[in-house]
Amino acid sequence: MGASSFSVRSFTVPSVDAVTYGAGAFDGIGDLVRRVGGSRVLVLLSGSLVGSPVEETLRAALGSRLAGVHSGIRQHVPRADVLGAAVRARETGADCLVSVGGGTPIDCAKAVAMCLGTGITAPEGFDDYRVRFTYPDTYEVPELPADLVPHIAVPTTLSGAEHTGLAGVTDERTHVKGSYSAPQLMPRAIVLDPVVTAATPDWLWAASGMRAVDHAVEGLLSSRAMPFTDALGVEALRLLAADLAHSAKNPGDLGARTNCLIATWLSIFGLTNVGVGLSHGIGHQLAAEFDLLHGLTSAIMLPLVMEFSAAQTAPAQRRVAEALGVDTSGLDDPAAAAAAVQAVRQLIEDLGVPHTLRAVGASRDRLPAVAAAALGDPAVAACPRPVSRRDLEGLLAAAW
Amino acid sequence: MGASSFSVRSFTVPSVDAVTYGAGAFDGIGDLVRRVGGSRVLVLLSGSLVGSPVEETLRAALGSRLAGVHSGIRQHVPRADVLGAAVRARETGADCLVSVGGGTPIDCAKAVAMCLGTGITAPEGFDDYRVRFTYPDTYEVPELPADLVPHIAVPTTLSGAEHTGLAGVTDERTHVKGSYSAPQLMPRAIVLDPVVTAATPDWLWAASGMRAVDHAVEGLLSSRAMPFTDALGVEALRLLAADLAHSAKNPGDLGARTNCLIATWLSIFGLTNVGVGLSHGIGHQLAAEFDLLHGLTSAIMLPLVMEFSAAQTAPAQRRVAEALGVDTSGLDDPAAAAAAVQAVRQLIEDLGVPHTLRAVGASRDRLPAVAAAALGDPAVAACPRPVSRRDLEGLLAAAW
Repeated sequence: MGASSFSVRSFTVPSVDAVTYGAGAFDGIGDLVRRVGGSRVLVLLSGSLVGSPVEETLRAALGSRLAGVHSGIRQHVPRADVLGAAVRARETGADCLVSVGGGTPIDCAKAVAMCLGTGITAPEGFDDYRVRFTYPDTYEVPELPADLVPHIAVPTTLSGAEHTGLAGVTDERTHVKGSYSAPQLMPRAIVLDPVVTAATPDWLWAASGMRAVDHAVEGLLSSRAMPFTDALGVEALRLLAADLAHSAKNPGDLGARTNCLIATWLSIFGLTNVGVGLSHGIGHQLAAEFDLLHGLTSAIMLPLVMEFSAAQTAPAQRRVAEALGVDTSGLDDPAAAAAAVQAVRQLIEDLGVPHTLRAVGASRDRLPAVAAAALGDPAVAACPRPVSRRDLEGLLAAAW
Repeated sequence: MGASSFSVRSFTVPSVDAVTYGAGAFDGIGDLVRRVGGSRVLVLLSGSLVGSPVEETLRAALGSRLAGVHSGIRQHVPRADVLGAAVRARETGADCLVSVGGGTPIDCAKAVAMCLGTGITAPEGFDDYRVRFTYPDTYEVPELPADLVPHIAVPTTLSGAEHTGLAGVTDERTHVKGSYSAPQLMPRAIVLDPVVTAATPDWLWAASGMRAVDHAVEGLLSSRAMPFTDALGVEALRLLAADLAHSAKNPGDLGARTNCLIATWLSIFGLTNVGVGLSHGIGHQLAAEFDLLHGLTSAIMLPLVMEFSAAQTAPAQRRVAEALGVDTSGLDDPAAAAAAVQAVRQLIEDLGVPHTLRAVGASRDRLPAVAAAALGDPAVAACPRPVSRRDLEGLLAAAW
């Protein structure tokens, strides 16, 4: 059929069965468990929801199929906490995991499924399954068993962890967050219910929403961008521009909260096909080093990273600006890109999220180590402007 | 957790593994067959591709794994033709189907997989598996076996058949096209290669592209619209507005052809979650009655149907207009809806596609029967304006 000047691309469709959303969606958790064949369910529950109406709903819906409720997993998912939850899953004979909370219990549930499927029982066991990456494009992604215990995820924040087959687990000895990646790490079903998010603190809702903004923007700016993810990213930004700041201040507006949960889904669905960029790559390492929420690292890094790649990504930045409500019809490319950065900065301002490294208490002398670690993060590969360790140090200095 | 005023919605993610696209994507067909575990492949090939470079590529890529090439399936997929292909599949011991062509061989391959999985060997056998529908909302969807023979689809038109778990098969005795629906009828992998479409006649490319326009528009206008499909529909219309007419006249512009194939994918991905509307519902029956291409029925019905529901769907029609390049900022809702209809009519004009029933040789005295059949088509249920048989007769009269 002859050679071609166009590159062949492949879009792997996320292996989630269904996403159920709207106020009251969580009430159907029993049916979803039944549909994935669960008869003994271990629930990984955010500590803040222990004893809450959410736990009551779970107990009522699952009845005798509830094998246990496990909580207390620490931020960034240390290996020890995954192992502790896996012990609990083995002890209870769990054949289904339900995670309810932010990215922490959700990523932990993915890692528990991995431990059960691979037989990991000690911290060193994780090393065999970690994604290895060398800049700019050498990946080594160890295989996982095909059938892992099914997992249903119910998020209370906008971090988007529920929509990926990626799990981040932190090695306590090195402070490095390792990535574990396989389609079968993706939750089988996802429940987006604004009622479940009622107890999420406003600042956490707002900060995690910045993570969704970051997913959408870096997907659009990626050197491997695709129309499929572009479409979803633009709609995600439209919804977030309309409802994120409002819903942080008005948790009772269930429609606005639902729209933000939907926007998060759209911001990240299929995103592993196109990659993200420097804001994610640097952010992963900042978060692990200084124990920061990912949403804060997005607020800190995203505007700077957009400026860094503006010459390469202006057309995509124009779409970002338009999705955020800017009329770009009279603007040339550099002006449209600047308008996009300004619109993101304005959103961060409206959310009241801290957006400098100093403001979040980061220690300045650790930044060179963060830059070095970021260059080893697979996310940086999709930035259309080639990047050196020196560039990363410069971005971190600007973020101070 | 309390009652809610918001309805709970569920989005079932299409069960396709991957979509591979770009010029040269078809050269990887051997790898895709291997990935789905195929060792004896029956190819269902559009008659126009017999002896073409496409068939040569297939034979070279599949080698001894090619169990047979079957062609000659007639438009709208009569039951007899499905049964003939199924006999061939049984004789050759096929464990994988590859369809290459328009919606006809692709839908036929789905129906062959159904026949192999259910044991259908006679025309009456289809009756047990047909979707039954009573207006406005009573469906009966018979179950199919979970594991059907894997199917890889390679479209040469923009009808979008490759992206659904729906198969249309016509009962020759009644001229009614029956629907067969199951996630497992969806192709496991899809290849979108503009080089494979080189032999597609310009008029067929253009007319089938109107089908993709219809998918995107009716998805946006559906009473069950969702942000996920809205996002993809808007992007599909943007791409089609830019490249459809151009690529019909310039088949050698592989980038423009690829964009149209991508737009078709976006126009229909997940669309069964939201439904379509009257243009599809009437169109299914017009196509079966008068042996018309689906794209022609879209050109004939879509603008009329948009006018019919304008009062209910004006905000969605505004998005259609904007995606097709209209600046709607100064327009009120009725004007925006009128602008959307006008933009669709202009696109049909640019494509040179016939757009009246008279022009395509339909017999006027059969229209009441078409209206009656359309009221039994599941697609009509998603039209936000309630519809009677008299309304359908009126629309068909206007389409004359």
